[in-house]
Amino acid sequence: MSRGKKQAALAIDIGGTKILAALVSPQGDIISQEYCLTLAHEAVEAVINRLLTTASNTLDKANMEISQLEGLGIAMAGALDTKRGIVTASPNLPGWHNIPLKDIMTEKLGIEVYLINDANAAALAENLLGAGRGAHNMIYITVSTGIGGGIITNDRLYSGVNGCAGEIGHMTIDVNGPKCNCGNSGCLELLASGTAVAKEAITRVRRGESSQLSELVAGRLEDIDARIVGIAADRGDPLACDIIAKAANYLGVGMVNLVNIFNPERIIVGGGMSHLGDMLLEPARRVVRERAFQLAAQSVSIVPSQLGDNAGVIGAAMFVFQSAGPHT
Amino acid sequence: MSRGKKQAALAIDIGGTKILAALVSPQGDIISQEYCLTLAHEAVEAVINRLLTTASNTLDKANMEISQLEGLGIAMAGALDTKRGIVTASPNLPGWHNIPLKDIMTEKLGIEVYLINDANAAALAENLLGAGRGAHNMIYITVSTGIGGGIITNDRLYSGVNGCAGEIGHMTIDVNGPKCNCGNSGCLELLASGTAVAKEAITRVRRGESSQLSELVAGRLEDIDARIVGIAADRGDPLACDIIAKAANYLGVGMVNLVNIFNPERIIVGGGMSHLGDMLLEPARRVVRERAFQLAAQSVSIVPSQLGDNAGVIGAAMFVFQSAGPHT
Repeated sequence: MSRGKKQAALAIDIGGTKILAALVSPQGDIISQEYCLTLAHEAVEAVINRLLTTASNTLDKANMEISQLEGLGIAMAGALDTKRGIVTASPNLPGWHNIPLKDIMTEKLGIEVYLINDANAAALAENLLGAGRGAHNMIYITVSTGIGGGIITNDRLYSGVNGCAGEIGHMTIDVNGPKCNCGNSGCLELLASGTAVAKEAITRVRRGESSQLSELVAGRLEDIDARIVGIAADRGDPLACDIIAKAANYLGVGMVNLVNIFNPERIIVGGGMSHLGDMLLEPARRVVRERAFQLAAQSVSIVPSQLGDNAGVIGAAMFVFQSAGPHT
Repeated sequence: MSRGKKQAALAIDIGGTKILAALVSPQGDIISQEYCLTLAHEAVEAVINRLLTTASNTLDKANMEISQLEGLGIAMAGALDTKRGIVTASPNLPGWHNIPLKDIMTEKLGIEVYLINDANAAALAENLLGAGRGAHNMIYITVSTGIGGGIITNDRLYSGVNGCAGEIGHMTIDVNGPKCNCGNSGCLELLASGTAVAKEAITRVRRGESSQLSELVAGRLEDIDARIVGIAADRGDPLACDIIAKAANYLGVGMVNLVNIFNPERIIVGGGMSHLGDMLLEPARRVVRERAFQLAAQSVSIVPSQLGDNAGVIGAAMFVFQSAGPHT
């Protein structure tokens, strides 16, 4: 008996701040969308209940039922054993350790559940429907609180043996650099993420360097974040400009590594820091031109993401359709 | 009309010291083999003539003719535009710049010619017939004068948009490190290659550190190379042991990056330095266990290559068979 083509996949993107759920068509169109706060400090069960409520609201909004779904895709950051559907650990969900999320959600919803790293999901979405269309080989980099990545090789998402490939934020670029929470040292994330930018800004303002930054946060220096540094840089604040330029330079060093290793057609930059646009990308592009192998440097274009905050849910849904395979 | 299944591919591995040619069966068996010196200081045409003579001798030895061949695969180090068959530059062949080797050889021999980076060829050979059998995702690292690499993702050689992926020796692991000839800085190759080991040894012996090394080269310190340092380390020479341990540690840092980025099943180490065996691999494995993401670190095995010096020709031949595709 033919199962028939399903109309949609359900996708949930679990972020540190909010849970985003969406019904997505096989073409990647969002049919309906809902969100709620993550409130990650609450118990695991409370967060899972919010996942279920948000999912249910998304279905109601579109007048659809579980039986019409191809499956559920869940995108989130962290150390995921995607093959077994287990959340080993997640920076967004401090209390989650070895949670068998796939099994839990399958039991609750009665559909196939797929777990996918959020940056991998975004890479897939950008490749199929965004800034990566037509690229056979590409790298997606999310520069946000942390730095994550997703890899497309030979037209397919490459996720490694356990599904945890793409941790490009945790490549050492400074072997003598500080220890990272991940256990490694001198990671790209420590030098080029939003957290790194904020930390550097707070340190230097505290040290007495003059800047608009303290005004922008009304003297509450602990409120300085990468977005605020971006605003100050946009207004020409020299300290803020210097900090962004340094982070962009480090990001460029990371990209040189990726260009020499992957010889990709495209590098797509998403995440909160990507809103800085060319202020972030132009110095990174310059470093790639200056340092990477010439042929590879000439062949790569480094561009901002197109799907923005929806990349996670769209990618998680497309992952469901791809994993479920063609219908008979 | 059916072309019929060809009996063999011809493969040539152009090294800095010697040219190795082989006839290889579709199963990867070497039917016949010849070599000659590269004499890379001579003119491009002289080297190409030696390629042709060696190829011809290899055919004669097996009583075979060009018409029986599937094609010719040429493996070599350097910046190759494999898609167009052009040798942009090669460390082994100083005078070679933008040489259209594929076109030249096609014209001389009248068969299909494929150019492949030598580490990519070795990766393919090890994956199909050596230490990488059965691995869907693996990285091959050659640690020799330089450091090169080859990548298998989802059961296929991954070579990037121009065919120059895999330059893992030229990832920055020390952002404040010295400038590399490649244009980048703080490259893994500067810290963990045979050249790095020899340079460090010469510097430290010259500086007066006591060691068997000067005896081993009868006082001609400029003759110290990685092989000699390996011999001294094997005999327990503390300086030599320290130098090898440092290089192995840096190699481990590079592997951590690869493990976090690729989540591979296997990392295979070939090249001259791999003859050091566990003296090189054990410290590198320890660094991976200590620093890489836990799940990925647990899933990777780091092993020596199996095909040794023949990996290049076998891989180049297998590349010919794969590129030529199935016969009708």
